[in-house]
Amino acid sequence: MENWKILEGGLDNVSGFSSYGINCGIKKEKNDLAAVLSDTPAAAAGVFTCNRVSAAPVLVTREHLLKERKLQLVIANSGVANACTGERGIEDAKKMADFAASCFKVDPHLVAVASTGVIGEFLPLSKIEKGIAELSRILPTKKSSREATKAIMTTDTFPKERALSFSWEDKTVHLGGIAKGSGMIKPNLATMLSFIATDLDIDALALDRVFREAVDQSFNRVTVDGDTSTNDMVLILANGKSGVEAKEGSPVFSLFREALFWLTKELAQDLARDGEGATKFVEIIVRGAKTEEEAKRGAFTVAESPLVKTALFGEDPNWGRIMAALGRSGIEIDPHKVNLEINGVTLVEGGMKAKGVGREQSQEAMKTRELRIIVDLGIGEGEFGVWTCDLSFDYVRINSHYS
Amino acid sequence: MENWKILEGGLDNVSGFSSYGINCGIKKEKNDLAAVLSDTPAAAAGVFTCNRVSAAPVLVTREHLLKERKLQLVIANSGVANACTGERGIEDAKKMADFAASCFKVDPHLVAVASTGVIGEFLPLSKIEKGIAELSRILPTKKSSREATKAIMTTDTFPKERALSFSWEDKTVHLGGIAKGSGMIKPNLATMLSFIATDLDIDALALDRVFREAVDQSFNRVTVDGDTSTNDMVLILANGKSGVEAKEGSPVFSLFREALFWLTKELAQDLARDGEGATKFVEIIVRGAKTEEEAKRGAFTVAESPLVKTALFGEDPNWGRIMAALGRSGIEIDPHKVNLEINGVTLVEGGMKAKGVGREQSQEAMKTRELRIIVDLGIGEGEFGVWTCDLSFDYVRINSHYS
Repeated sequence: MENWKILEGGLDNVSGFSSYGINCGIKKEKNDLAAVLSDTPAAAAGVFTCNRVSAAPVLVTREHLLKERKLQLVIANSGVANACTGERGIEDAKKMADFAASCFKVDPHLVAVASTGVIGEFLPLSKIEKGIAELSRILPTKKSSREATKAIMTTDTFPKERALSFSWEDKTVHLGGIAKGSGMIKPNLATMLSFIATDLDIDALALDRVFREAVDQSFNRVTVDGDTSTNDMVLILANGKSGVEAKEGSPVFSLFREALFWLTKELAQDLARDGEGATKFVEIIVRGAKTEEEAKRGAFTVAESPLVKTALFGEDPNWGRIMAALGRSGIEIDPHKVNLEINGVTLVEGGMKAKGVGREQSQEAMKTRELRIIVDLGIGEGEFGVWTCDLSFDYVRINSHYS
Repeated sequence: MENWKILEGGLDNVSGFSSYGINCGIKKEKNDLAAVLSDTPAAAAGVFTCNRVSAAPVLVTREHLLKERKLQLVIANSGVANACTGERGIEDAKKMADFAASCFKVDPHLVAVASTGVIGEFLPLSKIEKGIAELSRILPTKKSSREATKAIMTTDTFPKERALSFSWEDKTVHLGGIAKGSGMIKPNLATMLSFIATDLDIDALALDRVFREAVDQSFNRVTVDGDTSTNDMVLILANGKSGVEAKEGSPVFSLFREALFWLTKELAQDLARDGEGATKFVEIIVRGAKTEEEAKRGAFTVAESPLVKTALFGEDPNWGRIMAALGRSGIEIDPHKVNLEINGVTLVEGGMKAKGVGREQSQEAMKTRELRIIVDLGIGEGEFGVWTCDLSFDYVRINSHYS
């Protein structure tokens, strides 16, 4: 897009937003508490985990959000998930929101709370309240999206921030977002938090629709290990400070939609890039399926197969495992019609090893940091792409001693 | 059972059966070709992979078996799977069976062929034919179930053989079986081969029914990584040499049924014990679910969760991951009603950390080689148990450089 500008700084450039992160003592030294504040109440939308064991902050935030479809403040902690904590967990999440509301002088239902970390432990409320008070003294005068991002990281190895702006007439609209992964990532969310801010002026229901669409095209295409967590949420706040109003269907709405798609896609891909122990970012595209739904099911089955993922880690062009995963996925498949390529090198033609492709060439094709695997089932028009990573020793190391 | 006798020697004690295994040159030194021979045509039944990408030997053996529901000879190779090999693969599997039929002087449709190993390569037919000729000179004079078992091993670390006998009036009925795993194991079969022999006299249709029941209670409860392979099959041959006839519903039929259940359960559990890289054998029982089907879905989701499996490897009592896996499994669950215990130690009560159980005690409960995890959902009568193993560094090591 001509008038796009990709920016540094995550949430920092979005007018009327400020964010910061500190250590409040849940973790030893690292940041563990973040706040994202809008100067004024903002139109808001959210997508929450589908896990039936939903954590307390998910339940409380959803309730707050649905009251008026507005939010002004997001408070998020890492280290303790406040999941599987019963009634007390709900009370704790509400206390966290109420305390933040009084410190920041906003209505309690305009406060979203989010937590990530170990399941089954209660929130250390006094530490969190002390931290919230501190953050309320810092914001909005001082701000740092980077510090906020660091405060929501768990096993993430790098902070995930993206931002861009586009101009409209003589004004500029900003979008910024932060996110954390990195295991337990799987569509319909997972151990994933993402907070997105924009200074566009947009109606909350229109925002909700376009946001769901964007999440479907981005976060819902990522899978690290097929596990979906109890806690996670993606929120967007739009405070209108750019002075640009976008009505659904208008040209500026289209511009915004495209910018939002880019932002969420980049953040989502960062999650796969930083999958626990990942050494490779892998895009798996299944096309030629009977329906899009079948392409999706096939792509996810391949992406979540431990045998496929370990082969990718080992740079082993063992395409038979991809065929086997497709075969067990439950989708319609005619093995004799399947073609498969990795990074542009055709390995399978008509369901068999492609002629004239030696093992060296296949192996060579797998040596890049980013892999693109295209499977053409050759029986229909359905297509779906997902993003994942390989399964390495480090995934086991990280996850065998987490709690 | 009073008149049961658990035996050594796999297939060796079953009257009228002989088996052996040799190296025919597919692998460098290890056995790679096995034969199981009955002196006379035997009633037979089989269960085959549900993977839609079925390997050639699966297609050929199923056809042979269904012709008369009889088999006399099983020829199995390891090293090359003859899967994703198109028409030529089918021709090769037929040639393998035909060649064996002429060497052993049995009807071609009484020959079952099976292959396991790398997908996408053609069978080295001349090596296999030379090997078959050699086996036909060895059998039935010399026999060794152990050599046969070794010939079907791929990444298995120990040979899997089980046998037992029971007496009926003045006669003795024997059952023996061999099996191989060990990755790509998952219900409705997987990279799994198992050949079972009995000298019972039983009608093929009755055998088919009781065998399917037994497979459902055994092999179909095992999952190593959720991956299901293209190749695998479980066969049973009953040649009647014991002189004991079992009609469906008779007392001796019940004895046989129980013995067969035991045999298949032991073989199936061995597969989980020897899951690739496994350091722990894990039984996961979900009870109190709304239906048995829901209990099954919940149990398999937990058993296949990489996050749960790595925590088990690390002896980390991170029960939140089990809760999260149940929550995303799609089954009905009321988090506040869930109880969970590991090796008899209650970790979760009413969906929360059980009172009075310290971290040391939870960790202690996980230190055994065999783990039993019971989840009670508390909302119904449905129950299902599955067997799996943990996910270790070795799983990644083995599978990242296989082909």
